Amino acid sequence: MSIVVVGSMAFDSVKTPYGEVKDALGGAATYFSLAASYFSPVRVVAVIGDDFGEEHLELLRRHGVDTGGIERVDGPSFRWGGEYSWNLNERTTLFTELNVFEGFRPKLSPELRQSPFVFLANIDPELQMSVLKQVDNRELVACDTMNFWIEGKSDQLHSLLDDIDVLVINDDEARQLAGTYNLVEAATTIHQMGPKVLVIKRGEHGVLAFFNGEMFHAPGYPLKFVADPTGAGDTFAGGFFGYLAKYGKHGPEEIRRALVVGSVMASFCVEKFSIDGLVDLNEREIAMRYRAFQKLTDFGEF
Amino acid sequence: MSIVVVGSMAFDSVKTPYGEVKDALGGAATYFSLAASYFSPVRVVAVIGDDFGEEHLELLRRHGVDTGGIERVDGPSFRWGGEYSWNLNERTTLFTELNVFEGFRPKLSPELRQSPFVFLANIDPELQMSVLKQVDNRELVACDTMNFWIEGKSDQLHSLLDDIDVLVINDDEARQLAGTYNLVEAATTIHQMGPKVLVIKRGEHGVLAFFNGEMFHAPGYPLKFVADPTGAGDTFAGGFFGYLAKYGKHGPEEIRRALVVGSVMASFCVEKFSIDGLVDLNEREIAMRYRAFQKLTDFGEF
Repeated sequence: MSIVVVGSMAFDSVKTPYGEVKDALGGAATYFSLAASYFSPVRVVAVIGDDFGEEHLELLRRHGVDTGGIERVDGPSFRWGGEYSWNLNERTTLFTELNVFEGFRPKLSPELRQSPFVFLANIDPELQMSVLKQVDNRELVACDTMNFWIEGKSDQLHSLLDDIDVLVINDDEARQLAGTYNLVEAATTIHQMGPKVLVIKRGEHGVLAFFNGEMFHAPGYPLKFVADPTGAGDTFAGGFFGYLAKYGKHGPEEIRRALVVGSVMASFCVEKFSIDGLVDLNEREIAMRYRAFQKLTDFGEF
Repeated sequence: MSIVVVGSMAFDSVKTPYGEVKDALGGAATYFSLAASYFSPVRVVAVIGDDFGEEHLELLRRHGVDTGGIERVDGPSFRWGGEYSWNLNERTTLFTELNVFEGFRPKLSPELRQSPFVFLANIDPELQMSVLKQVDNRELVACDTMNFWIEGKSDQLHSLLDDIDVLVINDDEARQLAGTYNLVEAATTIHQMGPKVLVIKRGEHGVLAFFNGEMFHAPGYPLKFVADPTGAGDTFAGGFFGYLAKYGKHGPEEIRRALVVGSVMASFCVEKFSIDGLVDLNEREIAMRYRAFQKLTDFGEF
């Protein structure tokens, strides 16, 4: 089944202990789309400036991503700059230039409105809601958010949460949203806000998810080399949601496998800078990394 | 097979956001022994002061722990006091009084020298080595250590590492010992120092282990309530090593299951203060928590 994703497309300037890139392709919708494209048809709703090269759109299209919903407007694209600490676990934002993203008012074409799987990447919850209202044929809706909206647009965020199926956030965001440090307790509180499925991203420590009264944990894959963690969370979401859309089912067994597939895609993402780890993968590589996750977590009967 | 463990027995005064205890039974050898006792016969080598009540030794004996190797000397026992942060992830040591522990020179009786499984809890590597030299019939030797010895007794520690089979340390210690942030790289370096099996404890994030060219990860169990993390690492080691000793084998399949059993025991430990979570458990409870770990990590084929 096809996915429509709404979110940012951007140019990122990133410095880590292992190198740096300037004005490299980034943005939540970009990472999400590339990761999801290995499993399902993806249509992107985003805004780009006049500095966005045709080669970037071509790269997405080469992965089967429908770029028809990407609006091009005059002015510079969204730009973000950040630097990671020596252990890659802390990052400092050096600059955020919203540029054309500031005026973003997502509009879905009649075709896009029919996508049954909807992913609302981290943008203003009012915009996320406006997209959701345009959707005609929803089967599964997931969203991401961040501390900025939890604090600043609490009412709008809660309206949105009441209407979605899957929330994908990081551990600090879950704690802040629920008002408790304990993640099991936080899950109970967040389920009551609406989302039946809660996926908590924990960076290098993987993901912890709550659904159907069950808990599931997938570790982050221990890698010999991590170049750049930027986009890992959106990549995870793309792999996770793309896999669910591929099967068109979202029972507990599919959710478990999808959480591992998301972790697989995130592990490819962080091995290189920008989106380089997500380009030109093949099914064999993805299946092999999936088997590596099986080997990493497999244990027998007591 | 029987285990001999050498380490501290102590009185702990602990404050967490959920309560506090004063002069409660603690110490690495205590936690280790209780956890291991559910799987294998355990013999403790430790020193206690004249303030150590007979009821504490009786509690160990009730769990089948052989306390014959515990030496009682005049003076107060080892005492430690600490306080945990609101999220339980940071702890401040308020005081450490070595007391009778300062003069500890472990001596193994002829019977103890025959224990094939040997666990050297975190003490001075010179003492760990002196114990190892007394052992006659070793089958598997594991040790723990800490930053204090990695910095202060590097030569002695490296001699010891060269002669042991399994190293159980936390992630910061592994990084410090190997001189690299990356844990996969650290594992390669540490294997070259001697230990064929490296178990890295990551607190609430579980354990990551390297052995036989394989990696294995077990998560920390997501609990509704955590009272007190004190002793979780030693409890993990006790469950892990106790399970290996029970089967007398330590191939990759046994190591994987043992790592989960250690995590099971640690999850019981942190639910209550001091050793209260480890007292009077039964096999059914342990097997049920093991199954909960299976459910937490189980996923199907790609």
